[in-house]
Amino acid sequence: MFAERVKGLKGSAIREMFKLLAQPDMISFAGGAPAPELFPGELLGEISNKILKENAKVALQYGITEGYAPLRDYTRGRMEKAGNIHGHDDLIITSGGQQALDLTFKTLLNEGDTVVLESPSFIGGMNSLRSYNVHLHGIEMQEDGMDIDALEAYVKTQKIKLVYTIATFQNPSGITMSAEKRKKLLSLADKYDFYILEDNPYGELRYKGEDVPTIKSFDTLGRVIYAGSYSKTISPGLRLGWVIARQDIMEKIVICKQVSDVHTTVLPQMMAAEFFEVYDFDTHIEKAKVLYRERGDEMCTAIDEYFPKACTHTVPEGGIFLWCTLPEGYDSDALLKEAVAQKVAFVAGSTCMPVPEEGARYMRLNYSLTAPDKIREGIQRLGEVIRNAK
Amino acid sequence: MFAERVKGLKGSAIREMFKLLAQPDMISFAGGAPAPELFPGELLGEISNKILKENAKVALQYGITEGYAPLRDYTRGRMEKAGNIHGHDDLIITSGGQQALDLTFKTLLNEGDTVVLESPSFIGGMNSLRSYNVHLHGIEMQEDGMDIDALEAYVKTQKIKLVYTIATFQNPSGITMSAEKRKKLLSLADKYDFYILEDNPYGELRYKGEDVPTIKSFDTLGRVIYAGSYSKTISPGLRLGWVIARQDIMEKIVICKQVSDVHTTVLPQMMAAEFFEVYDFDTHIEKAKVLYRERGDEMCTAIDEYFPKACTHTVPEGGIFLWCTLPEGYDSDALLKEAVAQKVAFVAGSTCMPVPEEGARYMRLNYSLTAPDKIREGIQRLGEVIRNAK
Repeated sequence: MFAERVKGLKGSAIREMFKLLAQPDMISFAGGAPAPELFPGELLGEISNKILKENAKVALQYGITEGYAPLRDYTRGRMEKAGNIHGHDDLIITSGGQQALDLTFKTLLNEGDTVVLESPSFIGGMNSLRSYNVHLHGIEMQEDGMDIDALEAYVKTQKIKLVYTIATFQNPSGITMSAEKRKKLLSLADKYDFYILEDNPYGELRYKGEDVPTIKSFDTLGRVIYAGSYSKTISPGLRLGWVIARQDIMEKIVICKQVSDVHTTVLPQMMAAEFFEVYDFDTHIEKAKVLYRERGDEMCTAIDEYFPKACTHTVPEGGIFLWCTLPEGYDSDALLKEAVAQKVAFVAGSTCMPVPEEGARYMRLNYSLTAPDKIREGIQRLGEVIRNAK
Repeated sequence: MFAERVKGLKGSAIREMFKLLAQPDMISFAGGAPAPELFPGELLGEISNKILKENAKVALQYGITEGYAPLRDYTRGRMEKAGNIHGHDDLIITSGGQQALDLTFKTLLNEGDTVVLESPSFIGGMNSLRSYNVHLHGIEMQEDGMDIDALEAYVKTQKIKLVYTIATFQNPSGITMSAEKRKKLLSLADKYDFYILEDNPYGELRYKGEDVPTIKSFDTLGRVIYAGSYSKTISPGLRLGWVIARQDIMEKIVICKQVSDVHTTVLPQMMAAEFFEVYDFDTHIEKAKVLYRERGDEMCTAIDEYFPKACTHTVPEGGIFLWCTLPEGYDSDALLKEAVAQKVAFVAGSTCMPVPEEGARYMRLNYSLTAPDKIREGIQRLGEVIRNAK
């Protein structure tokens, strides 16, 4: 009865778990959302009121598929500054970053194509890929991003269509790919004729260390599709993202968007455009960086203090996640059940792996949603759960 | 380079044409949008301001895939009253009615499946279907809906997966399927094991005649998926629709929505829920009916007065479109070019047909966006274009 593509699909374990996590006293590191105390609710309230009073005929009517022109222009300007737009490129607004991924996959992938991705990777990206019935090949992560030698060895013998990468402050690992590896990835794309989807929802949130140029900024040949998002910098509820692609690819992406939801909700697009007009976006982002640096650092410190010494973890320079490796013999799925009973939660590694069985020793920990004292308390609890599990 | 599914896809001719139609003095019957003078901009402005001031942590944060609970509950209540929810059904909020169609197709259809639809049908539905590489079989329309005998003859020899129908005030024809045909369609679905997608964005807009029960209201066996929309009754820009389906089908639809856009923008969902709380929705719909009856009647009268007698047209009892048949030998694509030069526009039949070549004698005329005096003037112009084309 169902299409083949959906037969094997399961709901996101993370989102299912959210329902359990609503209990009071729960300290959850399982989320992936920005800190709500950063939301500019007052200002956006005034902005939305003004738009609907003065311009309802635009805000409430059908909009164009490519996006509300002033928001599109602002976003394009910002991306040009970052070197992410080349002569062959176009940019459209999408309904969140997730839609940018899904439309790219819909445009490029046939059933049975091979897609390479980081192992671990983002659950929403993986599930979208699974819905196109493609073969997923995971490449192990190193401290400076995916193992490029392993990728090269693979593409030498195996035709691939696309590499999906979250190169900066990766979800779930917090790892950033080095500039050297970014250039190497692009040269492989050229040599072995594949495309790259650079998913960059966290790139603006660097709170320490040096910026690394995007893969897209090196993309003179039009091999990189770039997905951006305002979810982590303004609001995920507004569902505003964008995609940059070579014009011939964009033409197909636009048609896929047209049949998918006609256009992105107009009012949030107008609100964001006006927000950028009356408020300095970089000042707003600075506030987020201060908050996330404090929380990220606190989590690293607390893990070093409370987890068994044999546990290791990444030390992100931005973003909202870190990745913890448990000693040999642990099973993070079982650990999660015990942790939730002890009122602390994380995302089990199995959820994040192209091959779930390879995730037993890993935990994704989010630090954007929890105040520092609660981070400490939660990590202490989790440390006890880990010790007791052995 | 591209996926097979997008190779043959072309942008919506209607949306492309919108760009030409922005000229002043143009009288366009080509649109498909509700009258903007009906938009409750003032009230929604106040509502959005209140929500963002008091509840930004919900409005701006990630929401759940199934939709904002109060809007989902309200919609479910309204659908229960209409008999559209059976024990086996569930309802979720979608990003406009278009997403409800697209998710249903994604959930049910494999490449090569056969889908039956009305000929003519809705361009957005057809283009979504085309993106799944299915075989489209059009069934001719009669005064009381699709030719059910022709459908029966077809399904006797050909396995089909789905019938896609806009049974009430159809886009583009304005025709409503009789209750008798609805029941027959459902009995065929049962006998020949196919599903029905009932797309009902205009059903609330009956301005004359007797209500006909939805196909979904007869659906004791769970064969009907029902797509609803607030686009024509509140605002298309807010992108709010819904889908009702049997729970096992809904489970897959929800997963497809999760990978498509995670969830529908939260703020518009909260705005609609609050709007229904503080304002009587039926009173609002009554205003639309009064406006559309006046405009629809005026268009019928003007056509009878100004078009050559050999032209015929449907006489809708609701909705926003009527369908005009030109005498033998006309080509509505060529006619459209001449009409636009004379500052009047419509949608050519070819755009609306599963087999475009069969559309030469037809025009879709929209009356929701134009004041009565302008409708008269535009129809007079178009009448002259038709006479001069012979």
